[in-house]
Amino acid sequence: MSQAKFIVIEGLEGAGKSTAIQAVLDTLQSAGIDSIQHTREPGGTQLAEKLRELVKQEHEGETLQDMTELLLMYAARVQLVENVIKPALNSGTWVVGDRHDMSSQAYQGGGRQLSRETMQALRDTTLGEFKPDFTLYLDIDPRIGLERARGRGELDRIEKMDMSFFDRTRARYLEIANSDQSVITIDANQPIEKVAFDIKTALQQWLEVQ
Amino acid sequence: MSQAKFIVIEGLEGAGKSTAIQAVLDTLQSAGIDSIQHTREPGGTQLAEKLRELVKQEHEGETLQDMTELLLMYAARVQLVENVIKPALNSGTWVVGDRHDMSSQAYQGGGRQLSRETMQALRDTTLGEFKPDFTLYLDIDPRIGLERARGRGELDRIEKMDMSFFDRTRARYLEIANSDQSVITIDANQPIEKVAFDIKTALQQWLEVQ
Repeated sequence: MSQAKFIVIEGLEGAGKSTAIQAVLDTLQSAGIDSIQHTREPGGTQLAEKLRELVKQEHEGETLQDMTELLLMYAARVQLVENVIKPALNSGTWVVGDRHDMSSQAYQGGGRQLSRETMQALRDTTLGEFKPDFTLYLDIDPRIGLERARGRGELDRIEKMDMSFFDRTRARYLEIANSDQSVITIDANQPIEKVAFDIKTALQQWLEVQ
Repeated sequence: MSQAKFIVIEGLEGAGKSTAIQAVLDTLQSAGIDSIQHTREPGGTQLAEKLRELVKQEHEGETLQDMTELLLMYAARVQLVENVIKPALNSGTWVVGDRHDMSSQAYQGGGRQLSRETMQALRDTTLGEFKPDFTLYLDIDPRIGLERARGRGELDRIEKMDMSFFDRTRARYLEIANSDQSVITIDANQPIEKVAFDIKTALQQWLEVQ
């Protein structure tokens, strides 16, 4: 393998991203990769974590515009990419990301229905050609995923959206997954052990050809 | 006059924007306009004021990327435009703004040297066709303006930039002022009373043809 890679886990609430990340870390370590950094979005720097709070919290008496939400997501992403992810990759450290740009495309583009032109303009302007080397998309019926997420406690501002929002988000996730060869779809409706097994298998196959 | 207008005061630190705003408010009231709202950017809503703080403060141990600064400025602007300025104008209230989009064009586009394509993409995506009806740009030599601003106390993160930053910012301000017929340039190097007089004269002339 020539250089460090950026691997991302994507999916709706309750899709099992935490388990997936552990499976990815285990698989990378088993493959002899020992310099690995784990990031999450939005977040991962001091400023980006503050922006995460602003996006997730309720704003009493003030409408958080969908466009504002998108801009804050990209502000956090730029901080993480430029200050953390790119320097890590350049120094030979692999990066495993809990969400990245595909989340914005799915949630703000699909869920919030911001236009495709808007979504493309923001991504092109802020990220340019930068993208993950490999993405594992955990596909789950939002009715199952949200049930799991609710079992974990209180829902944040975005998690409280209605079911049609999550149906649109999932549809956009699937659309991107089906059109981008660097994205593998994992059936996350399966039992968690089978999901972890599928992730390890997919990642091992991908690692073999790097 | 058919409808409420959005009037903006622009200029470098120490150009005399506070005095200018008072001159604008006096002139509007003398013209019989009594429903006027005053805004400032970045800021003017609870969330936008939080973003103002994040942009102005120092971030210890973390580089605030120029692109992030731009995204936060537009996030604050979208909140203010959609939640405050547009509703005010629609209800017949005039809006007098302390800075608006021209500041981003000048500071982030000129000063920070973000590309013209980036600046145009952000503005078009977030604001569309929305723009001020009339802008008073207070033009001042940054050496004079910063001297005045320093006299008022501690400088924030942006005010601490070197002189070439402010020279580039002023150059972009002048470029826009010279190409946009809705912008009037006021010589703010003059004594403050003469600046206020010029503002009143320019505004009165503009009001007569509305």
